[in-house]
Amino acid sequence: MSTPSGRAAGRAVGRGRRPGAPDTRAEILASARELFAARGFGSTSVRAVAADAGVDPALVHHYFGTKDDLFVAALEIPVDPRELLAPVIDQGEDGAAERLLRIFLSVWDDPEHRLPLIGLFRSLLEPTGERLLREGFLPVVLIPVGERLGIESPELRMPLVASQVIGLILLRYIVEVEPIASMSAERVVATYAPVIQRYLFDPLPE
Amino acid sequence: MSTPSGRAAGRAVGRGRRPGAPDTRAEILASARELFAARGFGSTSVRAVAADAGVDPALVHHYFGTKDDLFVAALEIPVDPRELLAPVIDQGEDGAAERLLRIFLSVWDDPEHRLPLIGLFRSLLEPTGERLLREGFLPVVLIPVGERLGIESPELRMPLVASQVIGLILLRYIVEVEPIASMSAERVVATYAPVIQRYLFDPLPE
Repeated sequence: MSTPSGRAAGRAVGRGRRPGAPDTRAEILASARELFAARGFGSTSVRAVAADAGVDPALVHHYFGTKDDLFVAALEIPVDPRELLAPVIDQGEDGAAERLLRIFLSVWDDPEHRLPLIGLFRSLLEPTGERLLREGFLPVVLIPVGERLGIESPELRMPLVASQVIGLILLRYIVEVEPIASMSAERVVATYAPVIQRYLFDPLPE
Repeated sequence: MSTPSGRAAGRAVGRGRRPGAPDTRAEILASARELFAARGFGSTSVRAVAADAGVDPALVHHYFGTKDDLFVAALEIPVDPRELLAPVIDQGEDGAAERLLRIFLSVWDDPEHRLPLIGLFRSLLEPTGERLLREGFLPVVLIPVGERLGIESPELRMPLVASQVIGLILLRYIVEVEPIASMSAERVVATYAPVIQRYLFDPLPE
């Protein structure tokens, strides 16, 4: 049977592919991760990832969809934040910040997700990861959520949201500062929702 | 003349002291930094720092004052945040968040301070630095500011303040996410002050 993996195996070159144990999808992902980290999101093309992995660009699209999708896959987030945040968007402005925080906490508070997320978060704060956060995560993941929410100036407001949520992640999950680390999810939601709601919807100073 | 440095030089042992080029103060600071990072603030005594530097504990107090002062000195912050924040405290509740943010930005926006602060900030986010942030910076520097401001539950409210200010530092100065990175200081103050004021003074959910 001619699986995509089988087709690719015939073409693949370099990068230490072991014949007989081809994992084209993992190869592409490894190349994507390497190039996104080295060059940033904006300067990495699907074509360059394909060339690095020794496959045809069509195969990259076949496995991963768009470059945005490839980026999200390369982040190895246990869940696709764009799908996860769909309910925040679908239910409109009222309570949007609460829903956003509640979804966000349900993922981070889950012990199965916690460790991979901490790894991802740490890697985004390293010098090579900063470009991924700045040029990838924000424009690919976060700002589109704001656009689909229909907020004004998502390119300003979503970074403001990020500035609070990232600080919360750091203190609650990474540095584990009390009492934030041990607060119930509902108390975190109630504490931070008015702030997130302000960043999303309130008039802001020019 | 018997300077403190001269007295110490006679006693100092180990740790690669170069005879003829004694810098007791720097030795103590290096020991303090090493022990605070390895053991955390709570488990490091002035006596242990003195022993590691090969000097008498009295000399540590002579140079640095209390253990809190030694900790602040070991952080190598270009300014003592406790002195810096005194005006926030002295002028009471009205506009406290604005004053806090304005002072904070005046230091971080100063090109002379920026690089050492970025270095410090990065080191606090490394695994060995996390304990310093959790067990040192918050209880020694930040929570006392809240206490002196006379806010309720400073041990809750100052970590909330930190969760926003740390996220702001990350996006404005470390990752340099636009438009936050290029905003005027006054716009940053106006954007974030209501949030900080809420964390300092508003009723919070239990």
